[in-house]
Amino acid sequence: MSSNSFGKLFTVTTFGESHGPAIGCVIDGCPPGIAIAPQDFAHDLSRRATGKSRFTSQRHEADEVEILSGVYENKTTGTPIALLIRNTDARSKDYDELLDTFRPGHADYTYWQKYGIRDPRGGGRASARETTMRVAAAVIAKKWLREKFGVQVRGYLAQIGDVMPDLSKGAVIDFDIVESNAFFWPVAAQVPRLEKYIDALRKDGDSVGARVDVVASNVPPGWGEPVYGKLDAELASALMSINAVKGVEIGAGFASVSQRGSEHRDELRSDGFASNHAGGILGGITSGQDVLASIALKPTSSILKPGRSVNLAGEQVEVRSKGRHDPCVGIRAVPIAEAMVALVLIDQALRHRAQCGDVGEVKPRIA
Amino acid sequence: MSSNSFGKLFTVTTFGESHGPAIGCVIDGCPPGIAIAPQDFAHDLSRRATGKSRFTSQRHEADEVEILSGVYENKTTGTPIALLIRNTDARSKDYDELLDTFRPGHADYTYWQKYGIRDPRGGGRASARETTMRVAAAVIAKKWLREKFGVQVRGYLAQIGDVMPDLSKGAVIDFDIVESNAFFWPVAAQVPRLEKYIDALRKDGDSVGARVDVVASNVPPGWGEPVYGKLDAELASALMSINAVKGVEIGAGFASVSQRGSEHRDELRSDGFASNHAGGILGGITSGQDVLASIALKPTSSILKPGRSVNLAGEQVEVRSKGRHDPCVGIRAVPIAEAMVALVLIDQALRHRAQCGDVGEVKPRIA
Amino acid sequence: MSSNSFGKLFTVTTFGESHGPAIGCVIDGCPPGIAIAPQDFAHDLSRRATGKSRFTSQRHEADEVEILSGVYENKTTGTPIALLIRNTDARSKDYDELLDTFRPGHADYTYWQKYGIRDPRGGGRASARETTMRVAAAVIAKKWLREKFGVQVRGYLAQIGDVMPDLSKGAVIDFDIVESNAFFWPVAAQVPRLEKYIDALRKDGDSVGARVDVVASNVPPGWGEPVYGKLDAELASALMSINAVKGVEIGAGFASVSQRGSEHRDELRSDGFASNHAGGILGGITSGQDVLASIALKPTSSILKPGRSVNLAGEQVEVRSKGRHDPCVGIRAVPIAEAMVALVLIDQALRHRAQCGDVGEVKPRIA
Amino acid sequence: MSSNSFGKLFTVTTFGESHGPAIGCVIDGCPPGIAIAPQDFAHDLSRRATGKSRFTSQRHEADEVEILSGVYENKTTGTPIALLIRNTDARSKDYDELLDTFRPGHADYTYWQKYGIRDPRGGGRASARETTMRVAAAVIAKKWLREKFGVQVRGYLAQIGDVMPDLSKGAVIDFDIVESNAFFWPVAAQVPRLEKYIDALRKDGDSVGARVDVVASNVPPGWGEPVYGKLDAELASALMSINAVKGVEIGAGFASVSQRGSEHRDELRSDGFASNHAGGILGGITSGQDVLASIALKPTSSILKPGRSVNLAGEQVEVRSKGRHDPCVGIRAVPIAEAMVALVLIDQALRHRAQCGDVGEVKPRIA
Repeated sequence: MSSNSFGKLFTVTTFGESHGPAIGCVIDGCPPGIAIAPQDFAHDLSRRATGKSRFTSQRHEADEVEILSGVYENKTTGTPIALLIRNTDARSKDYDELLDTFRPGHADYTYWQKYGIRDPRGGGRASARETTMRVAAAVIAKKWLREKFGVQVRGYLAQIGDVMPDLSKGAVIDFDIVESNAFFWPVAAQVPRLEKYIDALRKDGDSVGARVDVVASNVPPGWGEPVYGKLDAELASALMSINAVKGVEIGAGFASVSQRGSEHRDELRSDGFASNHAGGILGGITSGQDVLASIALKPTSSILKPGRSVNLAGEQVEVRSKGRHDPCVGIRAVPIAEAMVALVLIDQALRHRAQCGDVGEVKPRIA
Repeated sequence: MSSNSFGKLFTVTTFGESHGPAIGCVIDGCPPGIAIAPQDFAHDLSRRATGKSRFTSQRHEADEVEILSGVYENKTTGTPIALLIRNTDARSKDYDELLDTFRPGHADYTYWQKYGIRDPRGGGRASARETTMRVAAAVIAKKWLREKFGVQVRGYLAQIGDVMPDLSKGAVIDFDIVESNAFFWPVAAQVPRLEKYIDALRKDGDSVGARVDVVASNVPPGWGEPVYGKLDAELASALMSINAVKGVEIGAGFASVSQRGSEHRDELRSDGFASNHAGGILGGITSGQDVLASIALKPTSSILKPGRSVNLAGEQVEVRSKGRHDPCVGIRAVPIAEAMVALVLIDQALRHRAQCGDVGEVKPRIA
Repeated sequence: MSSNSFGKLFTVTTFGESHGPAIGCVIDGCPPGIAIAPQDFAHDLSRRATGKSRFTSQRHEADEVEILSGVYENKTTGTPIALLIRNTDARSKDYDELLDTFRPGHADYTYWQKYGIRDPRGGGRASARETTMRVAAAVIAKKWLREKFGVQVRGYLAQIGDVMPDLSKGAVIDFDIVESNAFFWPVAAQVPRLEKYIDALRKDGDSVGARVDVVASNVPPGWGEPVYGKLDAELASALMSINAVKGVEIGAGFASVSQRGSEHRDELRSDGFASNHAGGILGGITSGQDVLASIALKPTSSILKPGRSVNLAGEQVEVRSKGRHDPCVGIRAVPIAEAMVALVLIDQALRHRAQCGDVGEVKPRIA
Repeated sequence: MSSNSFGKLFTVTTFGESHGPAIGCVIDGCPPGIAIAPQDFAHDLSRRATGKSRFTSQRHEADEVEILSGVYENKTTGTPIALLIRNTDARSKDYDELLDTFRPGHADYTYWQKYGIRDPRGGGRASARETTMRVAAAVIAKKWLREKFGVQVRGYLAQIGDVMPDLSKGAVIDFDIVESNAFFWPVAAQVPRLEKYIDALRKDGDSVGARVDVVASNVPPGWGEPVYGKLDAELASALMSINAVKGVEIGAGFASVSQRGSEHRDELRSDGFASNHAGGILGGITSGQDVLASIALKPTSSILKPGRSVNLAGEQVEVRSKGRHDPCVGIRAVPIAEAMVALVLIDQALRHRAQCGDVGEVKPRIA
């Protein structure tokens, strides 16, 4: 499978550079008969979009999706679905002076080492703009998962810099609150503080990292495959492929290191599991509990503060980003992380159906 | 690609159950002309093996590798290399009473939910015994990487329970020390303490988690592919596919969350990078710095302490593992983690060579 | 790999329906640094296009290629190349009355059986219009093969109905003649006869089959992989995937059945092979001789002559195609067959380079 | 997918050389719960085996299958099934003098060009012995197809040299006759003539080609995928990958070239199709009619008659095969061709189930 494609059976291939004429994707292997229209993409694309608040980059893209194929009379036909979004607000001149310079913390240097050539406009293919198409493709995946199985995939910001949500342990997340503020933050009372925090960061010309948690609920037991196709392995790959992600956890994650076995193992009772340190996955296969994944996003390297680097001639230079960037890219990563989880789930659902038949046969279910 | 296969071009397919007649693998796409003999596998297999000290499971397997194909007069021919190891010390009777019971924290329940049938002997396919073949396959990968590029892939235990290595920040790991104790621990003075710690744990019938760090040095710049085939994405998948792994970090990992962009971004100087928070990977492609990956391993669920669970009839039961198990599976994970990193690297090296030609053309190199 | 993608390393994913808004493709894994501009596609697309003579369908499509990504300042960058062609002359009303009817010899019935839904406009995804993108993608493949290895991939019509080229056995094909007539026919003197033949066929409202031969010359020895990735196996798949193809031959093909081993085996002499019954491939790997492949194309089922069929209600109906169709689709198949051969060759070339290093090491070469 | 693997979801990876210690395969993605035991492989392996009559090679292999994994209490568990057959009658000394010589018509020269090294014993990986594992793997595929859908995949010899079965056009094949003679020949009365024919050939130290037809009956409509994953494209690849195959036809095959559209298109009537020139496949998807495929096998190049070739030094030499070989390899190709058709069908069946759900929903069926 090509490296710009994702998924074995529900396969999404994306293309496009940040400041090229367009970005797009081709979705192959989609089940037929799913109702889909251009306006269905608006909600999630808007959640991911820049320019919606002063806390994200000020690039304004309409992100209007054109469906080029695979949909007939607003239903998927089973043939490849091509989606296209024209880039409209690409200010390539912002990058002119970076043509010969490798920005620190960016892919400029490595792309150039790999290919001997690179598209310098806005980070080219390495830009987070590519993730727009992941979100678009996942709109269809989420719809199928929700309508067929009741699966819901939802994320929220679980840390920004040193700030954590003021929640008691095991508290249930209120996703209405999450969706009502610009930070996907689960505690409404903390939002003003975050606004000040980000404003100060922007004034300082700096950026900060973030942690995003994703919860997939109502996932049937039995999805995932041993041993390299484990659901958690594929989630790890899917989430780590998002720009700026430096870590992935499933369930208890790194906290498992200092746990005892008697504490970590989730006991089963006749009315369900007693805890969920496993994050809903055992042996790479879902248990029927919520699937829990978390990611760490690094602070964006595109900041106003000057940094030292080298140019093509190997000379020492000072670099200062002028493009429009996010003080915390992690905020907008919430819908992207949801998208990647949804894409992994639909793919595994189809693979499970292939090998074992449709879900829903009579087995005792514990969750 | 099938879910028991790993790698696009250097493809390893493993098979076998913990207590079945044999385990094995088929390696396809191996470069021809690599010198390899049965005894070459002994070193790394021994590092992974159980029964070498009282700190690991007491199962004793000879782990003798038979080369069934793909090698002629001790050289790889380019055709599939099949490796076979017979299981000899499988005590399936230890598991007889677990036939109808789902052990908590194990894959028993999920395999049964998926397939409606499961091999209950020793965890079947979900056993860590499968990882033996990853280590075997990686012996060939490591050899090619080392001989052709000088790449070295080495790991060590970076945390066990709450105990961390007594190292100053940025200290260079002495791998001679790591290889001289049963814990792959980088600080010799702490080993007696660890021995007591594990002994107490064993007496208590419990287990604990661990953190493993892997360092790949001398990796040429340019390996890795945008955007779903990113080197870090594939490392995440490879490492998360190891039994008991619950988290993966690249470079600064979750610590990035509370870093500032001005701190995290690794500045470039004409004599190299000033730091390595990125873990040697930018935009999914190697920069020429050391590739740094870390994993969290959960405490094994196979412990003597009884736990509550349910049986096939859905009744509440008490489960107590009798099989031979590790108080800390994380210890033996060191060579397995190295193996997965090596398998990802050789695969990306071959893919890079396919698209961009052989490494070594004249480009300024910074590292 | 998804079923609308082709190639393991040089991967082409096509999308689009005959009468949808657009057709397009994404090429992933392309070597960087290949000079390419929109006008480079015109020549081969024109060779495949309809409406160029009275002997093909009268649909007129501009077939203007827009490069959406992967090319910067007219050079490939190594990232996915997306090509887009808008459909402009789609007359869907021609198909209105076929909405509920399965045309005999078409994919109408099978698509509907598979998906329970189908795009009836002009055959939808099953239309030969899809092959436009194969030809476009192969323009880049052909360029790389020619510039790097001197490989040339050229085809011609080797039979139309019962008419065969008036050539002596073993005659060398003059491709200047082939390219100078509307039939890709290698004997100029027969062209007037073919014109009359096709005119009569059109008047009769009927169609006829064709045979296309493709020759790839200057192919280095060593391309192709055992045992399911054999070059001939992949050529067979690639060529059989072209609309209307019902047979594929390599070298002597079906004539081998009545040959003796002493006749068929191509003896080697110090100055080269004495014959080429193998078609340049032994054990799935190129020998350095010309690679020879042939295909059989059925007569198109879209003809004016009425035919019997059934409708969605299962009732007997009479069907008569009104759309614009070819009396012999085989004619336009020449550039499509070349394209598929070129796509197979570039993919195998990259795979060979991955496993065995760049071509050109010192081995005795016989061809 | 690696080149020694076949199938996207029901994936068979084979390994082993003709005269190495063993051959084997790993089957991944197999549906769970299929009853399978070692003795189930005997029938088809015996049909493919050498040494059963004087008309095939005199190599005698027990072909005893050891099941190494994936089967528990005689049922498939859904995990990888590894099958192993030890080579017992490998006389490598027969090949000693061929070490430095490239046999004409063999893969000796091309393997050496590709890899710079080759296993010369009995053709190594290029030997038809590899096909044993295809037949073994297909035993499971055939069982699932038959038990779940009633699909039967059966082949017969349709031509040997210039001899064709004495059958009237459209005659139904009697597979009891086919299975009752050493030639898989459908007309009992011709068998004595074939015996004489092959005996004469053997005496002459020569060989001859053959044509094999395969019929898959009761295949449900809807299997196969546009556009590169067409069922006929995958059959072409699968069949062309068999040693010595030089041509593949679906349905009318090359005879389509001289047909008219009004003749070739299979009209639909309310009680089914009126003919089957398409070979049961339209647009790459099954129609519910019998799937018909044919292959051409070249005469084996391993014959007693001396042939001219070159050696490693590039010198002209005379080669005479001493190994035990078949005067007509095509005879034993019948079960191999069946196997490949069955492997393609099960794979497409699983893929269809993944995308479109289980077969059997209410649609009008015409066949």
